[in-house]
Amino acid sequence: MIDISNLVRDLSLVREKSPLIHNITNYVVMNNTANALLSIGASPVMAHSVDEVAEMTSIASALVLNIGTLDADWVKAMLIAGKTAQTKKIPVIFDPVGAGATSYRTKVCQQILEECKPSIIRGNASEIMALVNSNVKTKGVDSTSSSDSALDSAKILARETGAVVVISGQTDYITNGETTETVSNGNTLMARVTGMGCTATAIVAAFASINTDMLEAATHGMAIMGISGELAAAKSQGNGSMQVHFLDELFNLNESTLRNTLKL
Amino acid sequence: MIDISNLVRDLSLVREKSPLIHNITNYVVMNNTANALLSIGASPVMAHSVDEVAEMTSIASALVLNIGTLDADWVKAMLIAGKTAQTKKIPVIFDPVGAGATSYRTKVCQQILEECKPSIIRGNASEIMALVNSNVKTKGVDSTSSSDSALDSAKILARETGAVVVISGQTDYITNGETTETVSNGNTLMARVTGMGCTATAIVAAFASINTDMLEAATHGMAIMGISGELAAAKSQGNGSMQVHFLDELFNLNESTLRNTLKL
Amino acid sequence: MIDISNLVRDLSLVREKSPLIHNITNYVVMNNTANALLSIGASPVMAHSVDEVAEMTSIASALVLNIGTLDADWVKAMLIAGKTAQTKKIPVIFDPVGAGATSYRTKVCQQILEECKPSIIRGNASEIMALVNSNVKTKGVDSTSSSDSALDSAKILARETGAVVVISGQTDYITNGETTETVSNGNTLMARVTGMGCTATAIVAAFASINTDMLEAATHGMAIMGISGELAAAKSQGNGSMQVHFLDELFNLNESTLRNTLKL
Repeated sequence: MIDISNLVRDLSLVREKSPLIHNITNYVVMNNTANALLSIGASPVMAHSVDEVAEMTSIASALVLNIGTLDADWVKAMLIAGKTAQTKKIPVIFDPVGAGATSYRTKVCQQILEECKPSIIRGNASEIMALVNSNVKTKGVDSTSSSDSALDSAKILARETGAVVVISGQTDYITNGETTETVSNGNTLMARVTGMGCTATAIVAAFASINTDMLEAATHGMAIMGISGELAAAKSQGNGSMQVHFLDELFNLNESTLRNTLKL
Repeated sequence: MIDISNLVRDLSLVREKSPLIHNITNYVVMNNTANALLSIGASPVMAHSVDEVAEMTSIASALVLNIGTLDADWVKAMLIAGKTAQTKKIPVIFDPVGAGATSYRTKVCQQILEECKPSIIRGNASEIMALVNSNVKTKGVDSTSSSDSALDSAKILARETGAVVVISGQTDYITNGETTETVSNGNTLMARVTGMGCTATAIVAAFASINTDMLEAATHGMAIMGISGELAAAKSQGNGSMQVHFLDELFNLNESTLRNTLKL
Repeated sequence: MIDISNLVRDLSLVREKSPLIHNITNYVVMNNTANALLSIGASPVMAHSVDEVAEMTSIASALVLNIGTLDADWVKAMLIAGKTAQTKKIPVIFDPVGAGATSYRTKVCQQILEECKPSIIRGNASEIMALVNSNVKTKGVDSTSSSDSALDSAKILARETGAVVVISGQTDYITNGETTETVSNGNTLMARVTGMGCTATAIVAAFASINTDMLEAATHGMAIMGISGELAAAKSQGNGSMQVHFLDELFNLNESTLRNTLKL
């Protein structure tokens, strides 16, 4: 269960330290991800060239690998950056976008799991299930399964990889294979804004950069997402205004909004 | 002329079936396109790697090819995806962004027309004219001709290719070479938001995925665009708020807003 | 010091001529940059393929080179476009994003300076210092130095390269090595929106396309940015609404808002 004092502490730490988060992510969400990291007080950088990723990762406090619009060159850069992060003890946060939709995605996911040893993996139910069972089908990048049914897969994946595994959904599950945390905040409108899952991954990375307890860090990241999404949805008329309000809510979070909104 | 009952029916069908739309499109508009497809109730996926496009297209209900920020690798992926779509009888919707601005764009357009056999082609007046007459000049990605003057070219192009051809402009023209439909909704503010044309192409693809009559599908897509744009412009103070309101209006369309706003 | 009549004149000229601005820029900001150019009345085009950049630059009125998400292929295109611009006497506006963060970025910057001979260089304090002194460290893409401390570097860089050099910050400095102009408008919220610096570079390019005095053009661009940012911040609740209001303010600028807001 979330200790709200720790959540408040970690939010302050992100704002105070403004950690550099290196993102190798997809074209669709780069702008949103960068703005969400700026909202929360972190410092985003996007860099994908094999000529610089090792050096960029080395100066970062966390690395996000997101395969949303992967291709061979980008995967090469992800593997270099991921290995650098391992060597430098920088947490790798992995978003297996569309795992299960094509065999290429599923194969690249396995390669990243093996070579980059992510500290945290965040996906929707279908994606997490596809990482464990290659027979699960993902519809493009959208989930066809519920979070609840994927929890067993998440626990298996966590035990096999040593990573904390996050399933986003109506209820978010965060598990290290033994202990499972849940986040009940959020709103269905979040699923109608592209890249909300990718943004969650980036926010989780910001928390993982200032808290070495990966289960708590991931839970804090998801709680901050759910709270901001819930507050934003209450003010929104559709997915257009939702994007704007989401960033503003994330920007303005404080102890009192956290205490009043968090569902335990 | 648009049969409003059919328009209402098709909007419901998109929302109900949530068709997967595979987009190989440009960097500038990916986020907008994805959000607009989510607004209308479709499920967008962006994927461009030659290692997966055939498989991704195979599970999609329509394929969008948009050359806005083309290069050799992306064109290769477009051709593979387009041929897959043909084989699988999945409609290909082609957006010849900037055709006529450079000889490379014009050449790639010819290649896509020949090898991918699009079901629908949507462009501005200059782009459509450039596909027929290689002497027409496009100013970057903006039209230098009026829609009216391009209609003859559109008809020729439709007859030559067998595609339905859409010219976006103050009045939109949708023609199969024999029958021509028009859409008179819209607002000039739409031309001041980047990627509105690309969004139109994606929305048309959503309708083409649930209606096999390509002339009607394209007309419905353009009507939905024009109506949402018109409603959004009435609430906007500039091109910033226009983007936000546009997505919200698209999100909230219903039978009554369609009936009250459509200009026949 | 800014002559406000000249600023008003140049804004009118941009709107009247709608110059084509060719951007080879980063994935994160492409959408914002395109919309900001449309807001101000210019016509943006993004194109990066080696198969077309020379031709695209040839029809443009200014070229923006921005290395935010550089890689070997894009750098190749930038060099081709930059050389074409030189030959055709089209101003090159260079944004050395993240110079100093990795040795690759610093090296590419030197190459662009030498081979493309930019007319204007715009960066934050760390980036400008890194172009002169390779020992300066940039934190990802964010500055670690103040504008004031970078002014000496800017003057040296201007003298060495013949370019007008712009340092963005609380106060913006614009120098040709001899004369230095300042812009005091703006708001700290601008630094919390991703790509505001990149947008400034594009806006400066729009002014450089209609005014051959590069010192004045760059100063006008930065004044327009600062004024729009200041007006937008006053209406914003966070970095989400800031993006929307910024475009709307840019869109609606007129002589009276310029006269009332410009700080001399």
